[in-house]
Amino acid sequence: MNKQDLYNDYTQTMQKIADVVNTIAILGWDKEVNLPPKGARFRSQQVATLSGIVHELFVDDKFGKLLTRLNTGNSLSIRHKKNISLTLKDYQREQKLTKNFVIKRSEVTSAAYHAWLAARKANDFNLYKGALKDLVDVKREEAELIGYKEHPYDALMEEFEPDASTKNLEALFADVRKQLVDFTRQIRKQPQVEDSFLHKFFPKDKQWDFGLEILKNLGYDFDAGRQDISPHPFTTNFSPEDVRVTTRIDENDFSNMVWSCIHECGHALYEQGLPSSEYGLPLGAHISLGIHESQSRLYENNLGRSRSFWKPHFPKLKKLFKENLSGVDLDKFYRSINRVSPSFIRTESDELHYHFHVLIRFEIEKGLIEGSLEVEGLDKVWNKKYKEYLDIEVPDDRNGILQDIHWSHGSFGYFPTYSLGSFYGAQFFHQANKEISNLKQLTEEGNNLPLLTWLRENIHKHGRYYTAEELCKKVTGEPLNFGYFMDYAQNKFTEIYNI
Amino acid sequence: MNKQDLYNDYTQTMQKIADVVNTIAILGWDKEVNLPPKGARFRSQQVATLSGIVHELFVDDKFGKLLTRLNTGNSLSIRHKKNISLTLKDYQREQKLTKNFVIKRSEVTSAAYHAWLAARKANDFNLYKGALKDLVDVKREEAELIGYKEHPYDALMEEFEPDASTKNLEALFADVRKQLVDFTRQIRKQPQVEDSFLHKFFPKDKQWDFGLEILKNLGYDFDAGRQDISPHPFTTNFSPEDVRVTTRIDENDFSNMVWSCIHECGHALYEQGLPSSEYGLPLGAHISLGIHESQSRLYENNLGRSRSFWKPHFPKLKKLFKENLSGVDLDKFYRSINRVSPSFIRTESDELHYHFHVLIRFEIEKGLIEGSLEVEGLDKVWNKKYKEYLDIEVPDDRNGILQDIHWSHGSFGYFPTYSLGSFYGAQFFHQANKEISNLKQLTEEGNNLPLLTWLRENIHKHGRYYTAEELCKKVTGEPLNFGYFMDYAQNKFTEIYNI
Repeated sequence: MNKQDLYNDYTQTMQKIADVVNTIAILGWDKEVNLPPKGARFRSQQVATLSGIVHELFVDDKFGKLLTRLNTGNSLSIRHKKNISLTLKDYQREQKLTKNFVIKRSEVTSAAYHAWLAARKANDFNLYKGALKDLVDVKREEAELIGYKEHPYDALMEEFEPDASTKNLEALFADVRKQLVDFTRQIRKQPQVEDSFLHKFFPKDKQWDFGLEILKNLGYDFDAGRQDISPHPFTTNFSPEDVRVTTRIDENDFSNMVWSCIHECGHALYEQGLPSSEYGLPLGAHISLGIHESQSRLYENNLGRSRSFWKPHFPKLKKLFKENLSGVDLDKFYRSINRVSPSFIRTESDELHYHFHVLIRFEIEKGLIEGSLEVEGLDKVWNKKYKEYLDIEVPDDRNGILQDIHWSHGSFGYFPTYSLGSFYGAQFFHQANKEISNLKQLTEEGNNLPLLTWLRENIHKHGRYYTAEELCKKVTGEPLNFGYFMDYAQNKFTEIYNI
Repeated sequence: MNKQDLYNDYTQTMQKIADVVNTIAILGWDKEVNLPPKGARFRSQQVATLSGIVHELFVDDKFGKLLTRLNTGNSLSIRHKKNISLTLKDYQREQKLTKNFVIKRSEVTSAAYHAWLAARKANDFNLYKGALKDLVDVKREEAELIGYKEHPYDALMEEFEPDASTKNLEALFADVRKQLVDFTRQIRKQPQVEDSFLHKFFPKDKQWDFGLEILKNLGYDFDAGRQDISPHPFTTNFSPEDVRVTTRIDENDFSNMVWSCIHECGHALYEQGLPSSEYGLPLGAHISLGIHESQSRLYENNLGRSRSFWKPHFPKLKKLFKENLSGVDLDKFYRSINRVSPSFIRTESDELHYHFHVLIRFEIEKGLIEGSLEVEGLDKVWNKKYKEYLDIEVPDDRNGILQDIHWSHGSFGYFPTYSLGSFYGAQFFHQANKEISNLKQLTEEGNNLPLLTWLRENIHKHGRYYTAEELCKKVTGEPLNFGYFMDYAQNKFTEIYNI
């Protein structure tokens, strides 16, 4: 067989795997949006079966040999070569974990999840400690099996943020510490902005309709997706032509719906913009969670909390919720949606304090994995860091170390991608403003499609062709630079808080 | 390995297959209920991939050897043996079709489907003839490959109605011809009942709520299912603990929603009543389409169009649609929902003329498969039979031979199961009335759960343990007997039409 035939074989296998992976995503979407309570038992079994099938298809020896053969020589195009080398990398990573290890990890993770649930219910970290300790041991073992050049934490981040390094993150978070701690301290000293009108009663149906209008305005393609309600908003995709978002509606908190809508829309626009001609292949997939999050954060914060964005939308909002917003003008509204105030809970955080939540988790995870921190006493470490960075006293474990589900799912190395997302987002948005000369004006006119076109052209269409860092350099001319986020934050909040 | 271990291996494989089959059903449900238009392309590919995986798992040689080994000797329980022998039968049927034949069949069927769409659009049977002829040839070849004792049509029915025979159906439909042709002729001579009030404007939301109330009243478990809207109502199941129904709502035709609701509910109650301990195995599956349809028809017609059923529900309906039903009493309503009038379209038929639609298709299919009928001129044969049995002149092909999707999907031998369903349903309902002495009274009090309990105990819980005929004998003491349907029809319509 010639190389092109072999490449077609490769494509076929990859699409077969993608079909099953995407089917698992459909089962997951259905679980969150539709599943009747009794359906959960067999649904779990169905997902487990399909996951097993994906694993069998992917680690197949014959497939490995095919990849190795395709990876040598020069007869493939550059794009085809890129697909092969990225797949081979994924394949080799998958091979490093023995079947026994995968079973052990799955058992330990499942135990940790149940321990976490019980501990959260009892509001007592002590009930989680033992299982968390076992989990940390397993994750350390995983890091050794996968291997790393500099730091074992690198091996774990790889799953979520390929090519990220602990060293780079340490430098990045040093900047966060240096610049953001002081700045938020200054903000906290200023008089607080008023936002009580956001907590009046906003009827569900009207919120829903407004959310749909925003999605359309941002360019979300409803012929290639849909929005539904779920307890926790999320985006999922079954192909670039079926990318679904969910939102939640709190009738006593308008912000909840609208920014979850815009955030998920950012994720969805990325997925809808991936090339469907590369379905199932690396060049048809997102680069990393950090880059994914850069799209959602850019839309949510840089665009969605800007005065320009609301200039055309606020009048519609006022019409829709006349009574609630009587006496509120654009400026007052703009301040209210940019309220900065420290909170115990990461998911309820404003866009500045957010990064301390991530920083704390990064420091703790890194410490646990490298062995400089122990699970014993970790709650105290947690609380101390919240005092140090956010100047708040954590009242109990539920509002502290027990708040996140991530560790109990075995996800170590995930949290940093949230901050990376914001920082990449700010840097990309800065560049978009440079390249689209009248972007602000377009936004003020309610035309958000030129921004989408720019993101499509510069980011979405490439799939995994570039690494996150390569992409960042290609798009903005330099590697990730916290300065862009900090500039954005200072420009905005210095004005809002009269600093 | 001992037999029990082998049986466990068997169960594991069967559950794995069931997990994928049920996942395909979820994809199908999602397609009808949620799919955005652009999502169709990759969705088809995903379904095809999973179908291929199911086939690979099922026709695996090792699995065949396991079945053969388990099928010999005596160390398994009777129920386990039953599972094995039924699975082996399915396995052997699947083995008879060569890979090449399956590919050819799939191509010919796909061509027939597209020809049918085009012919329907052009309202011209001539555009369908060639493809239909190829399809008939393929189905005849399929019958030969599968094999049969008496008639090639038996081999095709087997897929939908295991153990059905052309001979028995001929006898059954001879009764239909003898008794029902005359009876419907008598009805058609009588003054027609009034039903115009069913075609007033019935708002969607109120219909929806009423439908849900009916489902609850019949015993549908909303913790193990849900109702949604789709263009064509259907029932689907992903396990006995997740059985979903859909309905459609026509605001100008109240009947549309309510009887589709009750019909699908009958299907769903059967699926919710199958033993989940036998998930994935024959004893956890329905017997045949005929028995499935017996449950939906029993609910739709024998119960759902009875005066007793509406005695408690009609007052609620009157309250809900006050204006529409002003001046309508229970008796007038009861007559209106039992209007008998011949129609060209099977799916719009009343419950008596319905069986002529099926009879005509049975005669034609049987003729095509045995070679006594040609595709050439089939439209004329069709129209002649409609004149003969229903006394109507078919105006064009769209209202005639092009109306059904079944053939274009390659389904020959499916139609008879619709009539079998009604006839089994009438016989079962007769028996239920004999065994639950006060069933009519309970129904009049709005308590429909004793009927469900009876069906669960006598029919649902057995899965495929009995064949349709065995079940019928076990439950009613005799084989299928058209007399029960005819008695039911005569009792009801003689009164309604004053014959």
